[in-house]
Amino acid sequence: MFKGRKINPKAISEINTGFGINSSNYGGRFLNKDGTPNIEKKGVGYFEKISWYHALLEMPRWKFLISILFFYLAVNLVFGLLYFLNGINELDGINAHSTFQKFSETFFFSCETFTTVGYGKISPMGFIANSISAFEALLGWASFAVVTGLIYGRFAKPKAYIRFSENALLAPFHDGNAIMLRLAPFKNTTLTDAEAKVTLGLIVEENGKLVNKFFQLDLEYEKVNSLTLSWTVVHPITETSPFYNFTKEDFKNAQGEILVFIKAFDDMFSNVVVARTSYTLNEVIIGAKFEPMYYRSPAQDKTLLHLDKLSSISKAALNF
Amino acid sequence: MFKGRKINPKAISEINTGFGINSSNYGGRFLNKDGTPNIEKKGVGYFEKISWYHALLEMPRWKFLISILFFYLAVNLVFGLLYFLNGINELDGINAHSTFQKFSETFFFSCETFTTVGYGKISPMGFIANSISAFEALLGWASFAVVTGLIYGRFAKPKAYIRFSENALLAPFHDGNAIMLRLAPFKNTTLTDAEAKVTLGLIVEENGKLVNKFFQLDLEYEKVNSLTLSWTVVHPITETSPFYNFTKEDFKNAQGEILVFIKAFDDMFSNVVVARTSYTLNEVIIGAKFEPMYYRSPAQDKTLLHLDKLSSISKAALNF
Amino acid sequence: MFKGRKINPKAISEINTGFGINSSNYGGRFLNKDGTPNIEKKGVGYFEKISWYHALLEMPRWKFLISILFFYLAVNLVFGLLYFLNGINELDGINAHSTFQKFSETFFFSCETFTTVGYGKISPMGFIANSISAFEALLGWASFAVVTGLIYGRFAKPKAYIRFSENALLAPFHDGNAIMLRLAPFKNTTLTDAEAKVTLGLIVEENGKLVNKFFQLDLEYEKVNSLTLSWTVVHPITETSPFYNFTKEDFKNAQGEILVFIKAFDDMFSNVVVARTSYTLNEVIIGAKFEPMYYRSPAQDKTLLHLDKLSSISKAALNF
Amino acid sequence: MFKGRKINPKAISEINTGFGINSSNYGGRFLNKDGTPNIEKKGVGYFEKISWYHALLEMPRWKFLISILFFYLAVNLVFGLLYFLNGINELDGINAHSTFQKFSETFFFSCETFTTVGYGKISPMGFIANSISAFEALLGWASFAVVTGLIYGRFAKPKAYIRFSENALLAPFHDGNAIMLRLAPFKNTTLTDAEAKVTLGLIVEENGKLVNKFFQLDLEYEKVNSLTLSWTVVHPITETSPFYNFTKEDFKNAQGEILVFIKAFDDMFSNVVVARTSYTLNEVIIGAKFEPMYYRSPAQDKTLLHLDKLSSISKAALNF
Repeated sequence: MFKGRKINPKAISEINTGFGINSSNYGGRFLNKDGTPNIEKKGVGYFEKISWYHALLEMPRWKFLISILFFYLAVNLVFGLLYFLNGINELDGINAHSTFQKFSETFFFSCETFTTVGYGKISPMGFIANSISAFEALLGWASFAVVTGLIYGRFAKPKAYIRFSENALLAPFHDGNAIMLRLAPFKNTTLTDAEAKVTLGLIVEENGKLVNKFFQLDLEYEKVNSLTLSWTVVHPITETSPFYNFTKEDFKNAQGEILVFIKAFDDMFSNVVVARTSYTLNEVIIGAKFEPMYYRSPAQDKTLLHLDKLSSISKAALNF
Repeated sequence: MFKGRKINPKAISEINTGFGINSSNYGGRFLNKDGTPNIEKKGVGYFEKISWYHALLEMPRWKFLISILFFYLAVNLVFGLLYFLNGINELDGINAHSTFQKFSETFFFSCETFTTVGYGKISPMGFIANSISAFEALLGWASFAVVTGLIYGRFAKPKAYIRFSENALLAPFHDGNAIMLRLAPFKNTTLTDAEAKVTLGLIVEENGKLVNKFFQLDLEYEKVNSLTLSWTVVHPITETSPFYNFTKEDFKNAQGEILVFIKAFDDMFSNVVVARTSYTLNEVIIGAKFEPMYYRSPAQDKTLLHLDKLSSISKAALNF
Repeated sequence: MFKGRKINPKAISEINTGFGINSSNYGGRFLNKDGTPNIEKKGVGYFEKISWYHALLEMPRWKFLISILFFYLAVNLVFGLLYFLNGINELDGINAHSTFQKFSETFFFSCETFTTVGYGKISPMGFIANSISAFEALLGWASFAVVTGLIYGRFAKPKAYIRFSENALLAPFHDGNAIMLRLAPFKNTTLTDAEAKVTLGLIVEENGKLVNKFFQLDLEYEKVNSLTLSWTVVHPITETSPFYNFTKEDFKNAQGEILVFIKAFDDMFSNVVVARTSYTLNEVIIGAKFEPMYYRSPAQDKTLLHLDKLSSISKAALNF
Repeated sequence: MFKGRKINPKAISEINTGFGINSSNYGGRFLNKDGTPNIEKKGVGYFEKISWYHALLEMPRWKFLISILFFYLAVNLVFGLLYFLNGINELDGINAHSTFQKFSETFFFSCETFTTVGYGKISPMGFIANSISAFEALLGWASFAVVTGLIYGRFAKPKAYIRFSENALLAPFHDGNAIMLRLAPFKNTTLTDAEAKVTLGLIVEENGKLVNKFFQLDLEYEKVNSLTLSWTVVHPITETSPFYNFTKEDFKNAQGEILVFIKAFDDMFSNVVVARTSYTLNEVIIGAKFEPMYYRSPAQDKTLLHLDKLSSISKAALNF
């Protein structure tokens, strides 16, 4: 348990990360690896807690497709049953004997109504069957609008196509050391005006109690004009760093979490995109550096960015 | 009626809230509890004053669904009547005797045309019936486009899923007191770069007249990096506060309104969202503090945010 | 012709309005009353110069609806003709004698195909008729997608629902004078963080030549927190104003144009909206002030904003 | 090969362009003429590297239309084949003899199902044919939603309708020289708050090695209020310029690239749009100036902007 070390008083800690200040009310890490906060909401109903539109946007593609298929089957089972219960004599053109055949005819009639195909071989005759089908056609119409909206929403939702290195590193940097992490864009999008904000949550002893304190980590470059190659985000351990004067032992014992927040303008989406991740201090490799990941192409006419090398590291001697 | 007290001259009042300066032309509160301005527009026609698109976006879901249903019924009643008046002999396949049956057949024929189901058991024959149905199909087509747009608009409209505490508090803070209010996000969205702006409208006596003056209230933290837990917005009553040197009596007698404005980047919507509310000074509880609303989970691996405790307060002795 | 007067050297003119600097190449006013630049583009083809998507978004509603109707008629005339020329014997179910009847049947068959109603009383039989209808159904399908997109685009396009007073005024202000103009929001939207930028283009004599110079006009308030009531934008004529030391005569003779640019965040659209207008110096009324346009409601519980009084002015004696 | 010249130490080079710092790992130019980075991504699968939604948005219009047509044919060939293989006896109403006729009937039946036209002359009878058509109708429904989304996305995607001059110039400017390039908007859109950022990548000798260094180029005006006419972006060669004290020879021998980045608010799209281009130093014409491209209209009531003159230049003597 890290506690003895006094934090350098020049370290910048007057920041409000949104995780409270000096509180000891939380458990586990602050951010999950995928950048979502590690928080559970209580005390409100499930449907108030969830924005189902967002849930449907965030869902993996296959789940989304299965949901649509399932919804389609469910609607048609319900309406097929309604037509069936209402009596197939109100559907003109059905020519079936067994109950199964009769139900399957009403089911398929429902399908052609809901999708507005309307072949018309079977058509409603009585008032009730006509009313059900008029309502089902409206429902199909409206469902279609919903699905169109969802599909467009899934397309158009700005996403940050950014990958982070698996680990952060404690690496040599000039005459001292630095905390480093690397990220790279991996799709055919262009990110400009990228900005990084890195925060450290560290367990420290204060008046005999273990409390968490947040520190802002100064970066070598906080901004890049355009995020086209990889970007190694570097926090040099200087006098204003909370890690100032840390020994190798201190690094090993310290308990905390490095929160990383990236913001950039994606000119494909024409929108700001954000990405987040975090590294607990256990996920920081001590004494390593990143290997280069881009090279001149053999024909010397372009630059090759090797995305599979994003987390490639090699050993490096630290400056203590 | 509060009037005697001189406002601390260091209080910051050079702000333009958009409610005019020192004016005494308004009545009632500035903002309603839900954040909308308490203003009525006059002198322009109803349709100029209203953006019906926005009205349809803001409408509660059940009202919106009923509007669609109502519109569907109305359109089909009108077109059903047109087919009926044009003579059902221009609709091939109708097999009805009573007037009601005849009209209901034309009504349902209209439904299948409008929704483009088109079973075809009934089909238009004459020139006029054909023209009406060709126009109705176009109308159905266009209405569908409108509804799709509205539904997507309702989905995609960025909303700030933020709740405010029912009351603001006058609470002890360090050696003095502070005005406090609390807010929390309640959905599965992530709000980053949240910013609060708090303004006080206070009735003061100036040259023997009661006028309203606006003051900016300085905050302990104006920004949080990410709004994941609750956020207690704190205005410490220091020398630059308009409440400086107020006695308990002054607080009780003062007439005014605290306007709260929150702005954050929602990375689900990838857009800026805003929320507003206001507390009249009667809605400020004197001598209370907020109870904690988040805790370490029993398994110690996450943080639980109890949204039902947002307005939970307990008594607290003030520092006067 | 105004020329003799020397412009106060403290006036701020180091701004790039996008209309060039000191140039004398332009004619007429810079901005039209509706805020569009008074510029014509030459040297590129018509279709390169126009974004037809934007043209369709900006079009008045009735023109847009007529365009859709016209497009629908045109498509169906073309396809009706194709079916007709291909021979109506390839359309099963046509029962017509005169040429007009035959063509109208193919026209209406085209309508039900394009809108995907597909009653089916008439249906294509031969390979060519089938191919045409398969293509027409695809076209209908795609046109529908286009129209949906346009309709949604028209809805969702952020618009600044702001009106400007008809004239700007030279009004008394404290001990001196000021240029004033007024604006107000007129719909059920909420504009926050509104910002005004006012620029003056003035014809001055420089080295014996008449040139246009741009000056930035300092404002009493450049920003308002929320644009809920009317906003009187005030440029006080101080030492840094290009109008400093102007006599009444100078104001009458001066030739120039006041460019007004408003920017605000509309929290209905959740987007920035902008509005522009301009007043030539002839459109500035000398010696007038705006009359109040909002009042306490009779029941004293809200504020009434009289939009019809936006341009109401009364005479006012200037301080020269 | 340019190397000997020492770069003026006052030149601003502490910028992170996103192309790495002092690296010599890249080949060819940084940005292509159209502004896309000249980088190839390696080490991830093709589908991970590509956002197909963006690919479909960026595709030229004719390619997009052909893709839709091709997709339509492919889907109907597949489903036509399924119906055919399932046996045409499960499709009621087919009246065909040759295999080709039979298949073309199933193909066209698929078309009317996919587009939801559903004439109904042919209709599915058996369970399997019914199931296929119910699924195909759903697929048509969903594809339609996708296409609507894509079409709207193509419309609504903010694009910077900006053109750059073919070459940058080294032109005389006041008593010295300047790097100049010109741009102009070419559509009926209004760009406000335009901002230019110009960066130079220059090959310099450092410790005997050729490395690339990035320098920020200061501009005469970095911003224009509104981009309505043409904008000549000017980098005056002053003491803080990396080109300071360059001789004509130096300009000819230097190897490097000028990266240009424009950002503006388009109030048609109500969004920020960006444009990029680059000029290698070979593409900089030494000793030339831009000819005017806008004039007063003959009727003196507007300004004409001649877009075809964007790259018009004339010789000009430099100040060395």
